[in-house]
Amino acid sequence: MTIEPNDSFQDVLFSLRDDIDKGIYHPNEKLQPIYELSFRYQTSRETMKAVISRLVEENRIHRKSGMGVFVNPQPIYSSGIEKLGSVSDMIRKAGKEPGTQYVSAEVIEPTQDDLVHFHSLDVQTIARLERVRTADGEPVVYCIDKVDERTIPIGQIHNEQSIFKLIEHYKGKRIQYAHTFIEPIGYHEQISDILNCGLEQSLLLLKQIHYTEDDEPILYSANYFRSDAFQFHVVRSRMDE
Amino acid sequence: MTIEPNDSFQDVLFSLRDDIDKGIYHPNEKLQPIYELSFRYQTSRETMKAVISRLVEENRIHRKSGMGVFVNPQPIYSSGIEKLGSVSDMIRKAGKEPGTQYVSAEVIEPTQDDLVHFHSLDVQTIARLERVRTADGEPVVYCIDKVDERTIPIGQIHNEQSIFKLIEHYKGKRIQYAHTFIEPIGYHEQISDILNCGLEQSLLLLKQIHYTEDDEPILYSANYFRSDAFQFHVVRSRMDE
Repeated sequence: MTIEPNDSFQDVLFSLRDDIDKGIYHPNEKLQPIYELSFRYQTSRETMKAVISRLVEENRIHRKSGMGVFVNPQPIYSSGIEKLGSVSDMIRKAGKEPGTQYVSAEVIEPTQDDLVHFHSLDVQTIARLERVRTADGEPVVYCIDKVDERTIPIGQIHNEQSIFKLIEHYKGKRIQYAHTFIEPIGYHEQISDILNCGLEQSLLLLKQIHYTEDDEPILYSANYFRSDAFQFHVVRSRMDE
Repeated sequence: MTIEPNDSFQDVLFSLRDDIDKGIYHPNEKLQPIYELSFRYQTSRETMKAVISRLVEENRIHRKSGMGVFVNPQPIYSSGIEKLGSVSDMIRKAGKEPGTQYVSAEVIEPTQDDLVHFHSLDVQTIARLERVRTADGEPVVYCIDKVDERTIPIGQIHNEQSIFKLIEHYKGKRIQYAHTFIEPIGYHEQISDILNCGLEQSLLLLKQIHYTEDDEPILYSANYFRSDAFQFHVVRSRMDE
């Protein structure tokens, strides 16, 4: 980092923002006091304070009263929501190592909703998995998956993280698309704790029914994403009127 | 509603769920006590209790401790998120009458983010609108809109609810698509109160940059949707690997 002496708000703003983006300050790191920062960025304390306020507004940093200013974690992955990938794929594309902690794997009777999701009265038993997905060891997604018990060998689930792949290997069926409902979750009594989320950390819940190429509903998932770790976007096109 | 005498969990579940869907019970209405319900649906109290528990799980009704069981409001509008419509259009398609309460309309200097959104260093002043959008008088969306001040006559904003239409009339430019970021919000200090949302009512924030047919960024919006009033879904297609 080389800074030419200057006293311009915009230059300092760009420099500090850039330093945060480049990871020179780490997520949750405390910034130095104003007088040290203003020396580092070669500006006045007033300008430095204005820059800090702007970056708080921009959600790059946050103040803790009496404790100073801290760097916000940035999303590890930003994905077009219309593109379906497994959670493992998403984490890998962010340059992180996906991992899995099993919470439970059980065989249950289908609920009424399950029968509706799978368009079938023929489903006798459902394999239900609850897993915490991690990125470099950090819990970032809570996954509840449900499939017809006959679709995958539940005994094998610990050997293969990807249910997409298990279905492909054991059933020869490829998941092609999903119908997804998008729900914001403020705080979830069980799941927020498991994902180390406080009251202020919201979750994005994607409830999705996955279909094969033949339009057969084969997998139902409820995925709770930490919204500081995952960011989704979409291009919306104007409807004809 | 005609019910044949029965003692089957599933029949009663379907009947009560159907009655809620058809609006026989209104949103936020208190259900009768179990003994009255079991008489009405011609079933045992045990079955009735099991049905109530299921519908609580399904998020159709909720218990208030010591006060009974209440009907949850259902989303007034379910929209494919990849389809862009104005908020007025969305509310109208739900069969409700859109309305607008103005919170503020002001002309401000662009922030750094504004300049990035509008891909322009030429924007001198920004018209910034804050509005509460209502459906049949109920507040359901909080909208913050920003445009280059020269794009719309801010004095006219009270005569036309739709900013899309104002831009079309005054600039002859049609909004064609938007790049949208999807964010869950648990509780927002100011906005949740304005939308009559308690701590448990989350919001879905869509931050979007709207473009014309010529790919000119022309309108930036942050829309906070009550998640009990609006539901968004999307079809996600498998990425090639």
